[in-house]
Amino acid sequence: MAYASLENITGIAAGRWREQARDERTAQLMSSLVRHLHDFARENELTMEEWFEATEWLSRTGQISDDRRKEFILLSDVLGLSMRLELLHDSKPGEATQNTLLGPFYIPGSPQIAFGERLPGIADDDGIPLILMGTVRGLDGEPIAGAVLDIWQNDHTGLYEAQMPEGSPPHCRAIQHSREDGSYMFRTVMPVDYSIPTDGPVGELIARTTISEVRPAHIHFRIEVDGHPPLVTHIFDRRSTRLESDPVFGARDGLLVYFAEQPAGTAPNGDTIERPYRVGVLDLTLV
Amino acid sequence: MAYASLENITGIAAGRWREQARDERTAQLMSSLVRHLHDFARENELTMEEWFEATEWLSRTGQISDDRRKEFILLSDVLGLSMRLELLHDSKPGEATQNTLLGPFYIPGSPQIAFGERLPGIADDDGIPLILMGTVRGLDGEPIAGAVLDIWQNDHTGLYEAQMPEGSPPHCRAIQHSREDGSYMFRTVMPVDYSIPTDGPVGELIARTTISEVRPAHIHFRIEVDGHPPLVTHIFDRRSTRLESDPVFGARDGLLVYFAEQPAGTAPNGDTIERPYRVGVLDLTLV
Repeated sequence: MAYASLENITGIAAGRWREQARDERTAQLMSSLVRHLHDFARENELTMEEWFEATEWLSRTGQISDDRRKEFILLSDVLGLSMRLELLHDSKPGEATQNTLLGPFYIPGSPQIAFGERLPGIADDDGIPLILMGTVRGLDGEPIAGAVLDIWQNDHTGLYEAQMPEGSPPHCRAIQHSREDGSYMFRTVMPVDYSIPTDGPVGELIARTTISEVRPAHIHFRIEVDGHPPLVTHIFDRRSTRLESDPVFGARDGLLVYFAEQPAGTAPNGDTIERPYRVGVLDLTLV
Repeated sequence: MAYASLENITGIAAGRWREQARDERTAQLMSSLVRHLHDFARENELTMEEWFEATEWLSRTGQISDDRRKEFILLSDVLGLSMRLELLHDSKPGEATQNTLLGPFYIPGSPQIAFGERLPGIADDDGIPLILMGTVRGLDGEPIAGAVLDIWQNDHTGLYEAQMPEGSPPHCRAIQHSREDGSYMFRTVMPVDYSIPTDGPVGELIARTTISEVRPAHIHFRIEVDGHPPLVTHIFDRRSTRLESDPVFGARDGLLVYFAEQPAGTAPNGDTIERPYRVGVLDLTLV
């Protein structure tokens, strides 16, 4: 082997990772990564100072991350990479509910609620009450009973539980099982447009642009049931003005829901709601 | 703007960063980064699970880093990217001393030593004593006085100070100024082949390959003097068997030095050394 020169360094480095990896996937991913990183440096005549600044930035991105805050996923989101992967692995037939991003705020192990119940942490006078309901179905149109709906969203102030102090009680997240007829229904508040976290390295990056940091209001779902691949998606408030500038490119045509205004009165879940509220209906169709 | 689809997501994401950046360089680097990351995902059909594992790995790479340990630079080193950048910005004429990597172990603010003195932290009976000497010159062959030579290396046990407990006294690193005739000389121990740190995420990655983690023995220099661009380089022990498998691709033909055996006696720096030692001579030619 020759020593490295500008002409051979990429070939030598990619070749080493390809030829010396213990498994084929590592060989493929690492040699491809070397080639793309080297090409990136070459095409842009990256300077040592820029690259050193980048490595310090990457360190800080790791250091601000923990079990709840995932700054590298946020980075992946704002670069459109997370959405690209969502779309890459979305080979769903047209009738199935579209998938979209998991996002950085998912917390596993949410409390279970019964049909019609409220997400925990929401008081009577918080925000605009919302009843969300629909049926979980297969592609054949048949209802699916016992599907596990893992639901999380921000509250009327824009906060996710994952952004609240550690040890906070469960807030705006719950698990509900679909009933025998596939139906689900829960009470919550209208989610609101909110800013992605801008107090970390990803925020620094966005501050070098005029890119909007405001995500359109939405509610997250992760739906799992035997015999179907899990579906991770959001449903968006169709009236949000932030859909097209979503900083994480998450909005899709099939996920926009109109939350209809209702006068004060008895809601579909049986609650008496003493001020106007909204109702959204979305059937969730699994592959 | 349309919502994202597999066909348009890369163009939408790259376009947003290019068009909304506040300065041209951010526009160029970020849009190029988006394209390369997306191409990497597409070409390798990267899975969500692989990418999630990668983001967790990146977080840990940041979390193990601090003021002294720079795991992302180590990553950059083992991918050949650091060396590519060194070579990319090496437009030195043939006569000038070649540059190579800074590496992750540089500590600024080393103690000053006089001509002929020993690097701090080395005892009489440590390893094989080494006298290193030469002349700092310009491309015109004229000696350069007052050049600041910042020198660091591992000791006979393979340890750099940066790997020792924080607060350790200066160890195997020093600053020396070249004399009026451009000469420098110092006493040290022979550096030894040593393993890059394998107790972190980069070590995990290398463990998925048969790539050698052993670097060939070398001494680092950073040379700075008014009127010349700084030179960052190593000099390598020509007899190391690890030169071609250097995990960071740092070895270059012009940086291999033969450390000649000398019998016990009076060394060039005036010391009486009571066992065999070595002498290396290297002139350092600055652009």
